Amino acid sequence: MNTFGQLFRVTTWGESHGGAVGAVIDGCPAKLKVDIQRIQFDLDRRRPGQSHLTTPRQEPDQVEILSGIFEGKTLGTPILILVRNKDARPSAYEHLKDVYRPSHADMTYQEKYGIRNWQGGGRASARETVGRVAAGAIAKQILYEQCGTEIVGYVKQIHKVLAEINPQTTTIDQIEQSLVRCPDPQASKEMVNSIDRARQEGDSLGGVVESIARNVPVGLGEPVFDKLKADLAKGMMSIPATMGFQIGSGFNSTTMKASEHNDSFYNDEGQIRTRTNHSGGIQGGISNGENILIQTAFKPTATIRKDQQTVDIDGNEIVLSARGRHDPCVLPRAVPIVEAMMALVLVDHLLRQNAKNLENSVS
Amino acid sequence: MNTFGQLFRVTTWGESHGGAVGAVIDGCPAKLKVDIQRIQFDLDRRRPGQSHLTTPRQEPDQVEILSGIFEGKTLGTPILILVRNKDARPSAYEHLKDVYRPSHADMTYQEKYGIRNWQGGGRASARETVGRVAAGAIAKQILYEQCGTEIVGYVKQIHKVLAEINPQTTTIDQIEQSLVRCPDPQASKEMVNSIDRARQEGDSLGGVVESIARNVPVGLGEPVFDKLKADLAKGMMSIPATMGFQIGSGFNSTTMKASEHNDSFYNDEGQIRTRTNHSGGIQGGISNGENILIQTAFKPTATIRKDQQTVDIDGNEIVLSARGRHDPCVLPRAVPIVEAMMALVLVDHLLRQNAKNLENSVS
Amino acid sequence: MNTFGQLFRVTTWGESHGGAVGAVIDGCPAKLKVDIQRIQFDLDRRRPGQSHLTTPRQEPDQVEILSGIFEGKTLGTPILILVRNKDARPSAYEHLKDVYRPSHADMTYQEKYGIRNWQGGGRASARETVGRVAAGAIAKQILYEQCGTEIVGYVKQIHKVLAEINPQTTTIDQIEQSLVRCPDPQASKEMVNSIDRARQEGDSLGGVVESIARNVPVGLGEPVFDKLKADLAKGMMSIPATMGFQIGSGFNSTTMKASEHNDSFYNDEGQIRTRTNHSGGIQGGISNGENILIQTAFKPTATIRKDQQTVDIDGNEIVLSARGRHDPCVLPRAVPIVEAMMALVLVDHLLRQNAKNLENSVS
Amino acid sequence: MNTFGQLFRVTTWGESHGGAVGAVIDGCPAKLKVDIQRIQFDLDRRRPGQSHLTTPRQEPDQVEILSGIFEGKTLGTPILILVRNKDARPSAYEHLKDVYRPSHADMTYQEKYGIRNWQGGGRASARETVGRVAAGAIAKQILYEQCGTEIVGYVKQIHKVLAEINPQTTTIDQIEQSLVRCPDPQASKEMVNSIDRARQEGDSLGGVVESIARNVPVGLGEPVFDKLKADLAKGMMSIPATMGFQIGSGFNSTTMKASEHNDSFYNDEGQIRTRTNHSGGIQGGISNGENILIQTAFKPTATIRKDQQTVDIDGNEIVLSARGRHDPCVLPRAVPIVEAMMALVLVDHLLRQNAKNLENSVS
Repeated sequence: MNTFGQLFRVTTWGESHGGAVGAVIDGCPAKLKVDIQRIQFDLDRRRPGQSHLTTPRQEPDQVEILSGIFEGKTLGTPILILVRNKDARPSAYEHLKDVYRPSHADMTYQEKYGIRNWQGGGRASARETVGRVAAGAIAKQILYEQCGTEIVGYVKQIHKVLAEINPQTTTIDQIEQSLVRCPDPQASKEMVNSIDRARQEGDSLGGVVESIARNVPVGLGEPVFDKLKADLAKGMMSIPATMGFQIGSGFNSTTMKASEHNDSFYNDEGQIRTRTNHSGGIQGGISNGENILIQTAFKPTATIRKDQQTVDIDGNEIVLSARGRHDPCVLPRAVPIVEAMMALVLVDHLLRQNAKNLENSVS
Repeated sequence: MNTFGQLFRVTTWGESHGGAVGAVIDGCPAKLKVDIQRIQFDLDRRRPGQSHLTTPRQEPDQVEILSGIFEGKTLGTPILILVRNKDARPSAYEHLKDVYRPSHADMTYQEKYGIRNWQGGGRASARETVGRVAAGAIAKQILYEQCGTEIVGYVKQIHKVLAEINPQTTTIDQIEQSLVRCPDPQASKEMVNSIDRARQEGDSLGGVVESIARNVPVGLGEPVFDKLKADLAKGMMSIPATMGFQIGSGFNSTTMKASEHNDSFYNDEGQIRTRTNHSGGIQGGISNGENILIQTAFKPTATIRKDQQTVDIDGNEIVLSARGRHDPCVLPRAVPIVEAMMALVLVDHLLRQNAKNLENSVS
Repeated sequence: MNTFGQLFRVTTWGESHGGAVGAVIDGCPAKLKVDIQRIQFDLDRRRPGQSHLTTPRQEPDQVEILSGIFEGKTLGTPILILVRNKDARPSAYEHLKDVYRPSHADMTYQEKYGIRNWQGGGRASARETVGRVAAGAIAKQILYEQCGTEIVGYVKQIHKVLAEINPQTTTIDQIEQSLVRCPDPQASKEMVNSIDRARQEGDSLGGVVESIARNVPVGLGEPVFDKLKADLAKGMMSIPATMGFQIGSGFNSTTMKASEHNDSFYNDEGQIRTRTNHSGGIQGGISNGENILIQTAFKPTATIRKDQQTVDIDGNEIVLSARGRHDPCVLPRAVPIVEAMMALVLVDHLLRQNAKNLENSVS
Repeated sequence: MNTFGQLFRVTTWGESHGGAVGAVIDGCPAKLKVDIQRIQFDLDRRRPGQSHLTTPRQEPDQVEILSGIFEGKTLGTPILILVRNKDARPSAYEHLKDVYRPSHADMTYQEKYGIRNWQGGGRASARETVGRVAAGAIAKQILYEQCGTEIVGYVKQIHKVLAEINPQTTTIDQIEQSLVRCPDPQASKEMVNSIDRARQEGDSLGGVVESIARNVPVGLGEPVFDKLKADLAKGMMSIPATMGFQIGSGFNSTTMKASEHNDSFYNDEGQIRTRTNHSGGIQGGISNGENILIQTAFKPTATIRKDQQTVDIDGNEIVLSARGRHDPCVLPRAVPIVEAMMALVLVDHLLRQNAKNLENSVS
């Protein structure tokens, strides 16, 4: 379904080449100041055409808010966010109407729904994430204002280039200075070169986005099924092109012994902290106050210019020579999407945890 | 929260050393035959004390069903599953009452709830998964009866021992012949040795469970947030001790180019198939009919016998010498839990997809 | 929250004098033809300014659909419905900014949210129901196309005028011929006169809307909490100004004996029918195939022109002389809203029941 | 479905003549003292066999709690409540196996599910409400401890006997002194006589339960769909045998003018109050701090001893001579059920409102 969250519920809507895309946020607390510029900032980081490394589709992705905000503050009522599609070119996809592109959603949408909007991926297009990013930008503001929680994402790896980054200290300014949103300058340069090569070859590359939440309240997460790590995993794996998720020591934990892996507690001037953070900030499915660190793997974008074997809607085997605009690597644009999903998970759990604080209850 | 699923809703309940543990299934379709022996079979695979490699806690884990089944068939009403705790020894945990064990849920539960059942992990104990395994065994029966779908899990890796297994063909019989549920006999032997060493050292090991769903209907998964891979990720990451999830080519996809990674379609005597399955059976968040293949990473169990630095509930730094019964490696017992969660995700999505088939609707 | 339904989920959004109002429908099955004119028809029945008996606010209430429909058919993706506010006059409410109008939502919204959009009722305005009516019009089309189910509402009572209407046979044409949507011509005339008098007095009137669903499939309703009558009650009582709900014999059943009230079954040429329908088409919370008949009570609209005692936001006692545009009786405009909610309940339960029909399942 | 509530989620389970009935509560806040005796007290008020006016089925209805409570306090984990069926006599219903009793759920369950437990109504039996009453008793304790909110229900009308009761002041002691839970002694006596007569005739009677919540916090209710009145309506109409619901002035409001009906605000020593309470304590779907007053109509119980025309499962028309144990009037036993549902609605909305109070949030 198209809604994410239990209490801070975000419903996204819109097809890639329809009239508009957007989201409704239901459950946003009232009286919160919303800075529209912060929303636009994240949309600009996500939008196509921001550099020669991304698809040339030109979308200003200007945000409009049609309800739920009054005199700069949230009303506690649904917030309707709308972004018009300006550079839609449905006709450019006419030749793909009856084609199942490999590793795309064409076949599965057609089989599931018996119909699909074949224009640029329709609903399966990553254009759908516009609504996520806008809603996530509001979630980030709430987290920061209420708890000082800060969410930072960046590109950790593209294809075979792995960056060295200190997640505890890297800043958004450092990240934004890189065309590929990788704050390791050397790796950033190599990543740009790799993407350029792939673009020239008509091919595309995948990679890993790492993201961190700093200054997270203790106590977020709802065992046993809505563990914080479980909802983060779901949020990440709901992003198009994702193939894997890990938290803290992740898959590397499997080759460690518990005596190496366990995070010893100590008393840091009255606050209980852990000396290591293999747990990635979550224990028993609940945040422990340490930074939450996660990684999300993205496959190489399925759209390429090279010829590919495939079938059409009638099952005929054909050769597909793709045209149209696309990204040789989505990682740089995926960063604000990852941040948005992380923010949506955290703010939802903040409200859920808050519900239980009956000491503070109305009465 | 303690409920999983939208239409096939499983709510588990129970603490490790309380009176009982179990689950309620709400939304199970009516008139389905349920074989209690199949439930017991999976509980037996999960139960403690099944070999010298697991905790010696002796629990027969005999399943009782108190509602929802009538003359061997489901009524469409809630199914209450109950398993009594027989070998509970709450007093054995008295010394842990005020201790925060490293990388356990003690601290976060205490901080979140302001109270916790400190007897053997309470609700955070993996004993909670009894309800999941029983419910999953019913889900498996439905999947098999309705669609011929078969779910098979096994241990792919323990610590540094990596098995070679053909996921397409390995059978439950091959898996069950291994003490560690690894159907590669050589790797199995090495895994047993590794675990034995860890046990003697008072340490513990992690690893990877791989699981496959074969003969999956096309069309399962609800974009954009309830993509099938997203719900599988959530299901897996809701299991205690999990640190990572991947599907198909997973993290390895990040070092491939799209021209290598894309799964070409072809026409297999009228059925559209893919020549490779890097997508792991899911495209656009929807099953494409290929086998679904996933991996879940488990950290080394946090409970060990070695001394550890930690703090108590008042923040005093102490040394913990653990006693009590525990597993030197949970992987073998995790297999039926992984299978159960995979089954719960699939059967829920089967019902969700079915809801849309209005051609077949009541009228 | 602002979402109604489990599988056919309608989220409405928008404030009375904001930029627009509307709804998102998530979960609508794919490949269904949608007739936009049928949506507009119902919006026209709801819109203000349709006769001298309603508020003179002039809103064309032209429906726009921005996603989810492609070449006239549903895609199975979210349907975004948008209706612009054209005759918003926020400044006309400036004098009410700090006033709590009696029996309005001003005080409770302010207390709950700490903020409110005071322009014409903001979110609490019945203008919010635009989204419900548009979504309900789609639900009606689905019900009719899939099951032949027809939903008809009309005004049964206004103030002390009670109409005589045969619910089994009355038609929408008969209803629409009446300015007050009461198909009893004599009662209709008296109702018009009553409303006119109330309008001249600066007062307002309440009444009862009756609605019927004909040709309903057997088997809709999900015990024990989501009984069909329970969801109908919720749907109706979620409409602004409603005070009561009854089904079938309703409150009158309380003075009957079971021997009078029970609906005897008989065999009507192979179909099991009941000779009477005191149950109102629902038994055990599940539709039995007889017509579903419900009544909803509306209080007299709270906005009047007469002077009233009240307090302002600071607690000062004041006299309120209302200005602004309002309805002397909302009943005629409430008819399409009641129909919409009835349709939303039925179509949601149709999908829910359908989910269980595994015989028809994908496989 | 069998779950009620968004944050305080109660799932009931069990068939009338199965092994047991009960409930799971998920989402109950932690650290709350639970008085088991208060649960038992309400179960005793609901249980059969409590007077000669009720069914003679003998059920002690002793409550067992198997999880979620530790040393007398809630853990914040699921609370499993179990009540064994002691006086089940499934064989007594053998003759009803193939019969559709008029105005019962036999036919609709069979049609919906294709199977039913025909023993004493199975899941459709009011025995299901055991779980509701037990969960409601916990909800009542939370409401009282946290907010001082008190919920009181009583019989307002049985058949043609209407009681005069002051809802503001009547006490549970006064109510419990009456065999029929009607605190008007004269009416109580007449009600007893009416029921006795009906019992002798082999017939049954309906009536109205009124219930009040006193000292309710301002601000409960979640517009637009989860208005407090909407959720109360749903809660009440989910109880077996209910036919109608009204709040405050209810259906009587329809014959009043707004100038009579509107509740004027005044300043009561700093607190904003209303002079009348036609709104029944809810405005705009949100509690305004006045007492919440609702009425629920119950039809005469469908089970009677008189002969009735009906059909069997094959459609053959037959005459049914009912045997078995049943209530000539369920109203007295319905009182704790109504109270329970009212408590469940209020406590759920208390948590939902609490979630929004970010001023009090964790941080």
